[in-house]
Amino acid sequence: MAGASYLKDLWYVAGWSSDLAPGERVGRTFLDQQVVLWRSADGVVSALEDRCIHRAMPLSAGVVDGAVIRCPYHGLEFGGNGRCTRIPAQDRVPDTARIRAYPLVERQGLLWIWMGDAHRADPALVPDYPIHEDPVYAWRSAHFPVNGNWQLLVDNLMDLSHLPYIHANTIGGNPELHFSTRTRSEKLPNGVRVVRHMPDSVPPPTYVDAAGFTGRIDRWQEIEFEPLLIRIHTGACDAGTGAFEGRRDHGFSMRGFHGITPETETTTHYFWSMATNILDNGVPDEVFEQTARTFREDQEVLELQQLRISADPGHAMIDIASDVGGRHTRQLIARLQNEEMSGALESR
Amino acid sequence: MAGASYLKDLWYVAGWSSDLAPGERVGRTFLDQQVVLWRSADGVVSALEDRCIHRAMPLSAGVVDGAVIRCPYHGLEFGGNGRCTRIPAQDRVPDTARIRAYPLVERQGLLWIWMGDAHRADPALVPDYPIHEDPVYAWRSAHFPVNGNWQLLVDNLMDLSHLPYIHANTIGGNPELHFSTRTRSEKLPNGVRVVRHMPDSVPPPTYVDAAGFTGRIDRWQEIEFEPLLIRIHTGACDAGTGAFEGRRDHGFSMRGFHGITPETETTTHYFWSMATNILDNGVPDEVFEQTARTFREDQEVLELQQLRISADPGHAMIDIASDVGGRHTRQLIARLQNEEMSGALESR
Amino acid sequence: MAGASYLKDLWYVAGWSSDLAPGERVGRTFLDQQVVLWRSADGVVSALEDRCIHRAMPLSAGVVDGAVIRCPYHGLEFGGNGRCTRIPAQDRVPDTARIRAYPLVERQGLLWIWMGDAHRADPALVPDYPIHEDPVYAWRSAHFPVNGNWQLLVDNLMDLSHLPYIHANTIGGNPELHFSTRTRSEKLPNGVRVVRHMPDSVPPPTYVDAAGFTGRIDRWQEIEFEPLLIRIHTGACDAGTGAFEGRRDHGFSMRGFHGITPETETTTHYFWSMATNILDNGVPDEVFEQTARTFREDQEVLELQQLRISADPGHAMIDIASDVGGRHTRQLIARLQNEEMSGALESR
Repeated sequence: MAGASYLKDLWYVAGWSSDLAPGERVGRTFLDQQVVLWRSADGVVSALEDRCIHRAMPLSAGVVDGAVIRCPYHGLEFGGNGRCTRIPAQDRVPDTARIRAYPLVERQGLLWIWMGDAHRADPALVPDYPIHEDPVYAWRSAHFPVNGNWQLLVDNLMDLSHLPYIHANTIGGNPELHFSTRTRSEKLPNGVRVVRHMPDSVPPPTYVDAAGFTGRIDRWQEIEFEPLLIRIHTGACDAGTGAFEGRRDHGFSMRGFHGITPETETTTHYFWSMATNILDNGVPDEVFEQTARTFREDQEVLELQQLRISADPGHAMIDIASDVGGRHTRQLIARLQNEEMSGALESR
Repeated sequence: MAGASYLKDLWYVAGWSSDLAPGERVGRTFLDQQVVLWRSADGVVSALEDRCIHRAMPLSAGVVDGAVIRCPYHGLEFGGNGRCTRIPAQDRVPDTARIRAYPLVERQGLLWIWMGDAHRADPALVPDYPIHEDPVYAWRSAHFPVNGNWQLLVDNLMDLSHLPYIHANTIGGNPELHFSTRTRSEKLPNGVRVVRHMPDSVPPPTYVDAAGFTGRIDRWQEIEFEPLLIRIHTGACDAGTGAFEGRRDHGFSMRGFHGITPETETTTHYFWSMATNILDNGVPDEVFEQTARTFREDQEVLELQQLRISADPGHAMIDIASDVGGRHTRQLIARLQNEEMSGALESR
Repeated sequence: MAGASYLKDLWYVAGWSSDLAPGERVGRTFLDQQVVLWRSADGVVSALEDRCIHRAMPLSAGVVDGAVIRCPYHGLEFGGNGRCTRIPAQDRVPDTARIRAYPLVERQGLLWIWMGDAHRADPALVPDYPIHEDPVYAWRSAHFPVNGNWQLLVDNLMDLSHLPYIHANTIGGNPELHFSTRTRSEKLPNGVRVVRHMPDSVPPPTYVDAAGFTGRIDRWQEIEFEPLLIRIHTGACDAGTGAFEGRRDHGFSMRGFHGITPETETTTHYFWSMATNILDNGVPDEVFEQTARTFREDQEVLELQQLRISADPGHAMIDIASDVGGRHTRQLIARLQNEEMSGALESR
């Protein structure tokens, strides 16, 4: 787990569109590389190496001025393509005066960055997340720093059997219901899909509060992983009204987006949004607040795990029955890591 | 001094009985190993590796439930012998599902742990400390974290010539009296004994306060080291009333217990108790409070020493005359380290 | 830049005379070596290795008593030459009981220390700074810790083209004036001199406030580097009154002293003073306060640079036109480093 190499050739979430108003910038580390994200006056977001070519000053300490970002130390200016456009008190700017620019795509409220070989950065590969643009849904987003390796967060999200333990006081619910529910995991061409269906079950209190269920429900948890994000659809309809045959419009839906971007080997950016379909009584604030509380509980767990792993990185771990989805995920990740290392990405 | 290997095959103090009520647990590091100590509902204290076999979660973040401790992440349960007794959502628990259990003995208010080879963990070797059960004495205990290597704490306790300097404002007393007192150090089969006798001397203010001496006293400091604890008996009787011939019941006695357990190479658990014989005017609270203040002064010294040693670990040190007890102690420790390394422990 | 070896055979600023009253001591690290500076009861300042020969205790935690400094642990005492003068409870003090003493000279309000070979420590080589004793000037001093390598601070001071950026809100002034001003850099036998003259220019607000200029001014910035300090003379006279021909008594002068002493590879002691000629309206407090604010801005820059350099020490940097003075300085430093390494210091 520790020492795992990063997957490089994919679109990672770098942030939320709402993180950057025009003229704003922010410094972040992705895959051990320091990056400045900034939005020009006319709205274009760029991602550059966060280090001036001159004296290593972080550009994220500088200012955005129109279409350039200016180093705060001696005033060198750079465009979104990394090209230095001005060196004060010097007439000529040499061609070699440029810093690394990372491909960046802004779409559906998300900023996507490509940390690997820029030649492979095909915008058509940016993951699609139409929920953020669907008027049926209301959503909010967050950015949580996690003091743990990115694979620990993947594990966490792919195996929801931890709910009755870690989240006993939030979304946990009845442990016996969790254990008696079969978990099916299916390998996809570039992903893993885990499904748990709980037909004709008693609704948890939060579901009753949010959606006003009065009787038993057909409930689902559907988790889809693709590198390196996870979509989780949980929800319920009144029992026997067709939820498992695809008729869910009349029910209660929570759509979780989980962007997982390694910061360093032991820290991770966790960009998540939670969307719920807008019900008669409006958007349930409580759903969002409880989600945030729940993910804070996960943060604490991952940090504790990482402490133990860092203390003894070679120590073996064992899998248990409920790890089926996580195991499929790790197999896929291992395959992709091998492909990246052997340069066989073309065949992917 | 730095880089010294730990002595492993001995009973170390892991804590005080009073640290753990039934159903409580605490995580501690001993000799670089993370351990969870916990007391079952029916009172038995166990010591396990503080890391779940599944995903490295610290069990000390979990809960004790009857006779097991439960991992807070996915609910795996373990008995006091380290055997996993339950894996939720899995019928069979394989035999190999176990974590390391450390031999632990609870006795005389102390928890003793064996960090070395469990086959050598003979409960008969647990050091005896009947003072904790002697109705003549009242005692209190403490657990001080020390930011210094364990040998620095041994040195500190074996050479009380630092009293007039470090403890000038507490138990220091008259420097000249200290220097004029001969220190005798004697090697024991598995220890060192240092004795300083101060016949017919002026009582220090604290002795007068605590025991009401009105004239001169016969005073003693007797220090006994065995790996890895130190017993210190200090006290006084009215001069000429037989203290040095063994008649001390009528005097004032302070019995210090000093359990020294390495946490890491540069940090140490200091478990100490101070007992005093119960006098007519009751238990002198002041004795205990002053002892705590004094040991805090020592903590600061050891931390400063460690800073210098860590900055230049190979730097030589010199011994001075008053190091005779400490030198004997280090010779004994070096011999035991050699024996452990050569596997010659049988002959000890 | 990182990993640069220190220049050792020179007089470094160790502190200000005012840092130590008689009987006071302070621990500081220079060139990775821990030093205690202390002033005896009769006023002599000494510099010793800050580690007792006995058990590595920092002497800076001890006390000065007359002409000696006493270890706080077991009371060993040392004179200013590093010789141990007393070991409590031991009759003889061996000749070998000594710690390293560093040559130290106190002069013109400054404490100068020699960290290299003591045999080369010629007091005649102590840099002269008569401004501190010139009644024409009022001055104040400061000691700023800088979280950056010492060469970053040298670069910062040798190239004032950063003024309009970093110090836009303090002494920055008009960027265009800065860029249109020619910077001349001249190599000296053991130094570098950078001169910028701004004849017939508009006075910056602070100059107007401090000196009451009513019209245009002849302004100068003159920077002199010698290892490892920088003297900066900035100021102005009414235009056309002879400033560039050496007649400056009637003008406004700011004399900056910048002592740069490496603490570690990534931290630096910055000892600076600012002197201004005393004008009719007294000493301008505002000058000193603004200088302090300005240098705090530089501190922040150097810390940010160091973060990036430490993250990727091998990363190349490029020079720009305004680096001419800094480049000459680095060439001189590189030459001196080579000479120290090849033992060719005699020819310097």
